[in-house]
Amino acid sequence: MMMEPHCDDHPREECGVVGLSSDDANQTAQHTFFALFALQHRGQEAAGIAVSDGNRASLHKDLGLLSNVFTPDTLVPLRGYHAIGHTRYSTLGSSTARNAQPFLVETMHGPLAVAHNGSLVNAGELRTQLLRRGYALTAASDTEVMALMLASASGNTWEERLERMMPSWKGAYSLVILGVDCVVAARDPWGFRPLSIGRTSEGGWAVASETCALNILGCDRITEVKPGEIVTIRGKKMTRRRATPIAGGGARCSFEFVYFSRPDSEWDGRSVHEVRQRLGEQLAIESPVDADVVVPVPDSSIPAAIGYSRKSGVPFNDGFIKNRYIGRTFIEPTQLLRERRAAMKFNVLKSNIAGKRVIVIDDSLVRGTTSAQLVKLMREAGAKELHMRITSPRVLHPCYMGVDMGSYDELIAARFDPEKLREHVGCDSLAFLSVEGMMGAIGRKSGYCTACFTGRYPVDVSGVTGKNSFEGALK
Amino acid sequence: MMMEPHCDDHPREECGVVGLSSDDANQTAQHTFFALFALQHRGQEAAGIAVSDGNRASLHKDLGLLSNVFTPDTLVPLRGYHAIGHTRYSTLGSSTARNAQPFLVETMHGPLAVAHNGSLVNAGELRTQLLRRGYALTAASDTEVMALMLASASGNTWEERLERMMPSWKGAYSLVILGVDCVVAARDPWGFRPLSIGRTSEGGWAVASETCALNILGCDRITEVKPGEIVTIRGKKMTRRRATPIAGGGARCSFEFVYFSRPDSEWDGRSVHEVRQRLGEQLAIESPVDADVVVPVPDSSIPAAIGYSRKSGVPFNDGFIKNRYIGRTFIEPTQLLRERRAAMKFNVLKSNIAGKRVIVIDDSLVRGTTSAQLVKLMREAGAKELHMRITSPRVLHPCYMGVDMGSYDELIAARFDPEKLREHVGCDSLAFLSVEGMMGAIGRKSGYCTACFTGRYPVDVSGVTGKNSFEGALK
Amino acid sequence: MMMEPHCDDHPREECGVVGLSSDDANQTAQHTFFALFALQHRGQEAAGIAVSDGNRASLHKDLGLLSNVFTPDTLVPLRGYHAIGHTRYSTLGSSTARNAQPFLVETMHGPLAVAHNGSLVNAGELRTQLLRRGYALTAASDTEVMALMLASASGNTWEERLERMMPSWKGAYSLVILGVDCVVAARDPWGFRPLSIGRTSEGGWAVASETCALNILGCDRITEVKPGEIVTIRGKKMTRRRATPIAGGGARCSFEFVYFSRPDSEWDGRSVHEVRQRLGEQLAIESPVDADVVVPVPDSSIPAAIGYSRKSGVPFNDGFIKNRYIGRTFIEPTQLLRERRAAMKFNVLKSNIAGKRVIVIDDSLVRGTTSAQLVKLMREAGAKELHMRITSPRVLHPCYMGVDMGSYDELIAARFDPEKLREHVGCDSLAFLSVEGMMGAIGRKSGYCTACFTGRYPVDVSGVTGKNSFEGALK
Amino acid sequence: MMMEPHCDDHPREECGVVGLSSDDANQTAQHTFFALFALQHRGQEAAGIAVSDGNRASLHKDLGLLSNVFTPDTLVPLRGYHAIGHTRYSTLGSSTARNAQPFLVETMHGPLAVAHNGSLVNAGELRTQLLRRGYALTAASDTEVMALMLASASGNTWEERLERMMPSWKGAYSLVILGVDCVVAARDPWGFRPLSIGRTSEGGWAVASETCALNILGCDRITEVKPGEIVTIRGKKMTRRRATPIAGGGARCSFEFVYFSRPDSEWDGRSVHEVRQRLGEQLAIESPVDADVVVPVPDSSIPAAIGYSRKSGVPFNDGFIKNRYIGRTFIEPTQLLRERRAAMKFNVLKSNIAGKRVIVIDDSLVRGTTSAQLVKLMREAGAKELHMRITSPRVLHPCYMGVDMGSYDELIAARFDPEKLREHVGCDSLAFLSVEGMMGAIGRKSGYCTACFTGRYPVDVSGVTGKNSFEGALK
Repeated sequence: MMMEPHCDDHPREECGVVGLSSDDANQTAQHTFFALFALQHRGQEAAGIAVSDGNRASLHKDLGLLSNVFTPDTLVPLRGYHAIGHTRYSTLGSSTARNAQPFLVETMHGPLAVAHNGSLVNAGELRTQLLRRGYALTAASDTEVMALMLASASGNTWEERLERMMPSWKGAYSLVILGVDCVVAARDPWGFRPLSIGRTSEGGWAVASETCALNILGCDRITEVKPGEIVTIRGKKMTRRRATPIAGGGARCSFEFVYFSRPDSEWDGRSVHEVRQRLGEQLAIESPVDADVVVPVPDSSIPAAIGYSRKSGVPFNDGFIKNRYIGRTFIEPTQLLRERRAAMKFNVLKSNIAGKRVIVIDDSLVRGTTSAQLVKLMREAGAKELHMRITSPRVLHPCYMGVDMGSYDELIAARFDPEKLREHVGCDSLAFLSVEGMMGAIGRKSGYCTACFTGRYPVDVSGVTGKNSFEGALK
Repeated sequence: MMMEPHCDDHPREECGVVGLSSDDANQTAQHTFFALFALQHRGQEAAGIAVSDGNRASLHKDLGLLSNVFTPDTLVPLRGYHAIGHTRYSTLGSSTARNAQPFLVETMHGPLAVAHNGSLVNAGELRTQLLRRGYALTAASDTEVMALMLASASGNTWEERLERMMPSWKGAYSLVILGVDCVVAARDPWGFRPLSIGRTSEGGWAVASETCALNILGCDRITEVKPGEIVTIRGKKMTRRRATPIAGGGARCSFEFVYFSRPDSEWDGRSVHEVRQRLGEQLAIESPVDADVVVPVPDSSIPAAIGYSRKSGVPFNDGFIKNRYIGRTFIEPTQLLRERRAAMKFNVLKSNIAGKRVIVIDDSLVRGTTSAQLVKLMREAGAKELHMRITSPRVLHPCYMGVDMGSYDELIAARFDPEKLREHVGCDSLAFLSVEGMMGAIGRKSGYCTACFTGRYPVDVSGVTGKNSFEGALK
Repeated sequence: MMMEPHCDDHPREECGVVGLSSDDANQTAQHTFFALFALQHRGQEAAGIAVSDGNRASLHKDLGLLSNVFTPDTLVPLRGYHAIGHTRYSTLGSSTARNAQPFLVETMHGPLAVAHNGSLVNAGELRTQLLRRGYALTAASDTEVMALMLASASGNTWEERLERMMPSWKGAYSLVILGVDCVVAARDPWGFRPLSIGRTSEGGWAVASETCALNILGCDRITEVKPGEIVTIRGKKMTRRRATPIAGGGARCSFEFVYFSRPDSEWDGRSVHEVRQRLGEQLAIESPVDADVVVPVPDSSIPAAIGYSRKSGVPFNDGFIKNRYIGRTFIEPTQLLRERRAAMKFNVLKSNIAGKRVIVIDDSLVRGTTSAQLVKLMREAGAKELHMRITSPRVLHPCYMGVDMGSYDELIAARFDPEKLREHVGCDSLAFLSVEGMMGAIGRKSGYCTACFTGRYPVDVSGVTGKNSFEGALK
Repeated sequence: MMMEPHCDDHPREECGVVGLSSDDANQTAQHTFFALFALQHRGQEAAGIAVSDGNRASLHKDLGLLSNVFTPDTLVPLRGYHAIGHTRYSTLGSSTARNAQPFLVETMHGPLAVAHNGSLVNAGELRTQLLRRGYALTAASDTEVMALMLASASGNTWEERLERMMPSWKGAYSLVILGVDCVVAARDPWGFRPLSIGRTSEGGWAVASETCALNILGCDRITEVKPGEIVTIRGKKMTRRRATPIAGGGARCSFEFVYFSRPDSEWDGRSVHEVRQRLGEQLAIESPVDADVVVPVPDSSIPAAIGYSRKSGVPFNDGFIKNRYIGRTFIEPTQLLRERRAAMKFNVLKSNIAGKRVIVIDDSLVRGTTSAQLVKLMREAGAKELHMRITSPRVLHPCYMGVDMGSYDELIAARFDPEKLREHVGCDSLAFLSVEGMMGAIGRKSGYCTACFTGRYPVDVSGVTGKNSFEGALK
């Protein structure tokens, strides 16, 4: 058994993408590698890079962290001027190299590689259509579906084919595709998942899921790829075109601000770190409580805890130390240690907690597996009062657009009423941020998806299906 | 650099296949594994097994010897009642897991796995047709082409779809396919590559490239799958149907008798070992020479040398000892050792050679890379006379039906006239078996392909093409 | 090339140790594993565990992180009631399994395993003595020297033999040894490196380098193993004896408080986290500066930055985001990226820095390789003023007691005068904490080693030597 | 479970050694590698090479076949002018890298590496002596014992120290040692295991367990290292000295001729291949039988079968085909296949057996695990009569000099009387060669060890002991 890498209560995000051009055929894959490194937090299960030298495309992908998948032996052969890369999130157990990305195929228009971040709600339907047309599918991924549809689409360029296919793709996709002499990126009309573009310090262009990856490449002129927009990178030329109108005013994922994105990224014109501090400030306004210390659940909640402290005047301090190495281990804890599982990841700083009234800031409470344990640890450490404050609203609905929130059965806030939930967690008070408060901290009134909090899905999710009839442990 | 595993002068054969049904879901993959073990000589590059339990299909395949690819961790999860397996031959350098077999896809008719031994001469044309229809190809293998064509073929059963597609497949294929509840095997109308079927000791049925694999399973009722025939295995039921008439009277590969097949296999009603002895006997009749000893180049030429000795009366003895471990090494020999490369694989038994007139029996002389070195080793060991006798005719033409003979440039008998060739090899006399002599030893007048000797190809090979525009180092 | 895992300016510490007894032969190694997990920050190069079941001792050790070295396959066979464990720090290039610990030997008194944290200044001399006595040494480690000396020492118990040998060992050692039916731990008379003991929640006893490892085991009754003390763990019995008087009033490593120890550990009766906050407070008193924001270099300087902010009234905020995955990669950055190496590890939070007067808190400045790059990144991000404040004194002298500070040539503060150093780093002002200020924050006047700051070594370091005449890549 | 690599009835031999000097520091290890390749049949468990460049010694060793242990990454760093190498036999289960050879230590005389083939009958006693002197032992191997004794021996050179220590070593050892500027080889006074020396084609010298390894290096002037002799290789100089008189007239292992050595090796002035043919001839004289065909159990019995055929006039032919790939697999055969285990390794050539009176030649029958299965396979194939003829005498006693024959309980000829044994095997007649007949075929009256046949041990084996009190899974 593996210890779950997410023994805290966070949702899990799918994937990061990168695409870029470079003058130096030996550097393209390397730049892609380092840009992906900045996106490693978006996926630790698998990684891949595909490049094209103008004639042929090459690919390497495998299960594992980026630093395991790519060594000089596997990276150096990837020579070319255009590249796309992908890093995939960790689902334990079912991980298979078949579903790793990019997905590379030969088409009548030459080689085509595709990688994306997101999830199509009508993937099942699209698969069925392809199968009925006599296609054979090798994997269980949306990416293959998109690649096959592009391969058979009419149009003179990948951009034209994309334009034709995008209307039939319902759901979230921040997509990069590699043609024999270009990189093309596209974002779904809702703009669920982030995607940005910038000019590298060498004068080429790069797209990436988050701006922190563009920073690594020394980019300037960083802008968002807009919902429904297509951008093309060909050497030092970059062109943009609108493929479809923005759908329903846009539906950016609000959880990117709450938890997924790296705090040093920016999107929709806002610094993630600043938004997180404002989430903490807003929470202090909405749910104040008299206390001696504000402590974050590290690392993601630190900015929010600083914000809460700043607004409330209650001093900020560390309350937990996180073991940075806990990662994955194949050793199962003994019974004794199993009960102390959270203690292996978080050790309480007794002297900051003992005898104190403590406000604990966390950014989300989804499955509720860890919060109760953290509370227990703080009680053992002598906390006098414990007040949990969550910088996002109650998660009451699953996400079908690429975030693994769990099903209704797993969403603890959907199972328990607020008082029951507080009791379950074991704290003296428990408060969540309001949807309005969250949007206020983000600084937008609309244009965001809040489906997991409100159940108002921007796309029709009634037909979400799954499963194919084979499984492959291809290596 | 690797030492070539084939530093002798043999052609290389592509692949072995197995297909079977079993009552015990836990034993099916294991039986497939052990049957493949008996076919390991037909391919050391990659191996794979696909199984179906009646609902879902599973696959494991990877680069490497069978014993590396399959461990309890990878074999035990392959539960099911139907299975196909494949072992792939070694091409150094270009090996990639993408081209490993079986090839498993989901189709509108459920999961489909395909594995085959052979090569389609019109594969390039078929690829182009598929691409033009908007398909996307993930690999460079004929197997994918066949799988995609079957997936989109009309017909109510895999047998019907096979029957419809077989006429468009020109070339060699001994094919096994796995459906959700059956194994179907088919052989091209020429019957280039071998394929046999037998009843296992448990009462199920199994097909395999060679009868030695059926022997491992304790099979009785072993018969050939005829050229152009389709057989279906479904539990303890086996049915046969003729899909196409036998083409041109059949074109079985004569090199299977000369070199490829294991001597304990039988095909076309003949024991390979007996045929090899007769090849030696016939050679003694055609090209006698007064000598003191007949020695084989081990291991494949031992039966022929015994036959030559028996017919000629010249005593048989060992002349070389073969290092069984030489296999693959990643260590490059130093200059000193490079010149002695053959010596690393074959050590001369001086006492059997020194001062003697020696007849050396080898089964083929294709590229000529080793023969000269063997002759040099025997000269150093003091041989008085050296007479090479080859139990097959001059190889003058490439094979396009799945055997890697090399191109015209590489075929030494196509480049040199007989006397020049003898000089190049350095022996005192050199003789090859006649085509008629070879066919006589086999015991058939017709029904065999002798294209590599005669240039009379049973299929139109004018359009043989290659290459796709991408390469993937998928792992 | 690997990216250095320590591209910041910190010294490197050697090793963490654990020793414990347990009633359940199947849990002992597992508890040791999880305790070592809490000490992974003290060493990522290699790990090992040795156990004894009362009759036989077993060992597994290898290069790599704990989670790579130990899998169920390697951990489960380690059955026993007594165990010691070790985790070793990362020296790139020279890493070899030979020097991994524990070191297990057979002696006339039965099996003996030894692991330690520290470094003997007279190791060269002791090696020479052993070689002259006809011994043969298999590794380059002090541990082997200690094991061989114990094996040949007179005395009825390991404790007696330790007592006899300890006076000849000059330098730092927090030592755990495994006998056939006991764990014995000892600390050098100066007490350079930490070592603590506690009672596990099961009633057994455990020793570990840091108290955070004892917390994982649910320990109470946690106390320091005193300098010069020997403790014995045998089932639920624990006995202590004084082996030698405390040398020179003690010489605890002050850098454990500054940087090495996990902030949730306690030693010498103080919380590391609290001391770090006081180091920051004291620095605010000694080197105040008018500014807009105090930012830490994450993660280690966060508590000190909070302390500095609290005392100075300058608001605390995040200034850098650290890529937690950067770890090790085998991919060498291109020229473009090499210049931005620090940027791959630390991304600046522009909005918190731009246009501001910034105080940057770091805990040490040893080689100076990263500070200048961090300053450059903040300048690029638009910082108006940059004031570096270091929560430790100038490091002017190498450490010979187990900490890799580098040699005189590498210590930047020993090479440059203060103004030159400020210029080199590129900040507007640069200040270090005073030795007195540091000791004040620790809360002790004496009993600590400050040799790296003051050059006053508690032991004679004139004879420090190195090197043996062989190197082994034993795997 | 692994299939046993020795599912036939052969004893197992321990180890091959190589030692050589070369002018080219980059070629020395490579030459050692290729020489070891020729000795791979003497050990597949582990391999190692140690080199010295005149100043420092380096070592690489690991579990696995030579081609797995040595890759360019591990071989190229082994630069030096002097080298020794070792290949170790396969004992399943207990294999551990600790016991791999060479064993490299630092001594007061500089680095020392030791590797040997053989076994000391007084190893237990010598270990006890070392432990009593206060030594600590890291492994369970004789090699460490020998290395430590040499390290502490008096004498000015390794040769002198060897000369002093050899009298205390009772048993078999063909030993190579590496000093900082030389290779020294020694053979025990009985000469149990083979060891030869020759001049390489470059003018340096090499020693190796078998002459086939010297042939790879193009050696001439090949001679035996005599029992009790020491040879020194230092660049192009080679010197020999007698260390001790030959003990008891010599006690060369007769099983080297019967089974262990490669047939292309020579020792004691005889070709192994020729001796094996004479063993077959002698057997035909001692135990004739009227029959239709003589078949060998491949590969080792082929020369003997040729000899038997030649002398008896009964025609030789192949009876079994051996699967060369069976090697090791981690897949356990199902019940069905377990009963047919021999069938996985040997397939009967029906056409050569059916309806015939068959003489089966095997070289030894030790544990009896396979013979009965082979007989069963031939019965199933329709053999009319089956006569087993073994080209060695009954093995009635264990070997304590380095050959794993098994204990008395395992030796089937020690457990059953001849008629019972025949019944157990299931053949119509069963005959072994006489001891005198075997010695006659070798061509010597004395100077050979026949202890396993006769119980007359050349050394006192009453004190053979085992075991140390620890086990290490050091990797």
